[in-house]
Amino acid sequence: MSAFILHEYAASGNCYKIRLTAAHLGIALDRREYDIMKGETRSPGFLANVNANGRIPVLQSGDDYLPESNAACFFLADGSHLVPHDRFDRADMLHWMFWEQYNHEPNVATLRFWEKWLGDTLTDAQRAAVPAKRAAGEAALALMDEHLAKTDWLVGGHLTLADIALYAYTHVCEDGGFDLDAYPAVQAWLARVAAHPKHIGIDA
Amino acid sequence: MSAFILHEYAASGNCYKIRLTAAHLGIALDRREYDIMKGETRSPGFLANVNANGRIPVLQSGDDYLPESNAACFFLADGSHLVPHDRFDRADMLHWMFWEQYNHEPNVATLRFWEKWLGDTLTDAQRAAVPAKRAAGEAALALMDEHLAKTDWLVGGHLTLADIALYAYTHVCEDGGFDLDAYPAVQAWLARVAAHPKHIGIDA
Repeated sequence: MSAFILHEYAASGNCYKIRLTAAHLGIALDRREYDIMKGETRSPGFLANVNANGRIPVLQSGDDYLPESNAACFFLADGSHLVPHDRFDRADMLHWMFWEQYNHEPNVATLRFWEKWLGDTLTDAQRAAVPAKRAAGEAALALMDEHLAKTDWLVGGHLTLADIALYAYTHVCEDGGFDLDAYPAVQAWLARVAAHPKHIGIDA
Repeated sequence: MSAFILHEYAASGNCYKIRLTAAHLGIALDRREYDIMKGETRSPGFLANVNANGRIPVLQSGDDYLPESNAACFFLADGSHLVPHDRFDRADMLHWMFWEQYNHEPNVATLRFWEKWLGDTLTDAQRAAVPAKRAAGEAALALMDEHLAKTDWLVGGHLTLADIALYAYTHVCEDGGFDLDAYPAVQAWLARVAAHPKHIGIDA
C-alpha cells in the first residue's frame, strides 16, 4: 500500500499529470477509479469526503485531500529536481501551470472531451462555444510553439512540472481535432518529454 | 525606482492581487498602466517584449517578465509568511489558487467585466454564455462559503496567498451581479482580510 491514493478517471489528462509526476519521482500511487460519465464524482459521498468541487483528480495523503491537478503535482515534487531551485524559474514554472489551466486546458482538453466522449450528445450551448474554444486552443498551441522553437524545455533548461502539466493534454490534442503538424516545435518537445527514461504513457 | 515593474490595468483584480501581496510584504512596485479597452496589451511591442499571451498583469524583474497573476504573487512571497512552511499546506494554498483561476475568475471576474465594462456591447456569444457563468460563479461562492464557515482562513490557520488571490475578485463580485448577502461566511472572511494592518484597497 502506498502513502498516497489518487482518486481519478484514468483517461483524464489532469489525472495522468499526477501519475507522470509520481513516475519521474519513483513514488507509488494507489489508484481509485471513478466513472465521470456516470456522475460518480458528484455523489453525496464524494462531495462530502473527497472534493466538494465534485471533480477528479484528488490526491489523498493520509486523511488529507488535495484537489487540483497542478497542486497535487507540486505537492509530490516540492523540493525535487522537477521544481527549479532558482526563485524566478520556480515562479516561471508556475506561470506555465496557471496558463495551462486558464488558456490551454479549457480549450484543448475540453474539445477532446466533447469530441471523443460527448460527440453527438453536445448541448446547443456547447456547440455554440466550439468555435471560440477552437480558436483559443490553436492560439495556446501557437504560443507554445513559438516559445519551444527557442528552448528545449518550457522553463530553466530542464524538464520541470511545467513540461509534465502541458504534455498531458498537448500529446492527445489531436483527439480534439487539433493538428500537431502545424506546430513542429511542439512535436519535437513532445518527443523529448516522451524520451525521458522515467516517462510513462497515459495508458500505463 | 523599485526592483520590480508591474505592467497592469489597475482596476483588474488580477493586477490588484500582486499589489496586495507586495503591500503585505513591504515591497515597492513601479506601475505601468495599459488601457485594455484600447487593446494596448495586444500591440506588437507588448506581445514581443512583455507577454506573448497579450494579457496583464506581468511582473517585470530586471529583464525577466513573469505573466500570470498567481505566479507573480508566488514569486514575491516565496519563502515569506504568506506561503505556508508545511508542505501539504503549501500545496493546498496552490490548490485554492488554481481553483481560483479555473472555477472562480472565469465566472465571477468575467461577469464583472462584462456587466461593468462591456455592458450593452456584449456579443451574442457572450450573452449566451451568461447563464452558465452565473451558475458557475454562484457555485464557486457557495463552495467558499461552505469552507469558510468552518475556518477563518482558506489554508493553514493564517492569511496566505490563497486568501489574497480569492479576495481580489470576491470583494467586488457584486459588480458582476452576485449578492454577497447569500454568503455570510464569505462576508466575514472578506472583513477579516480587509482588517489586516497591511491591507490596501483596489483603488490604492
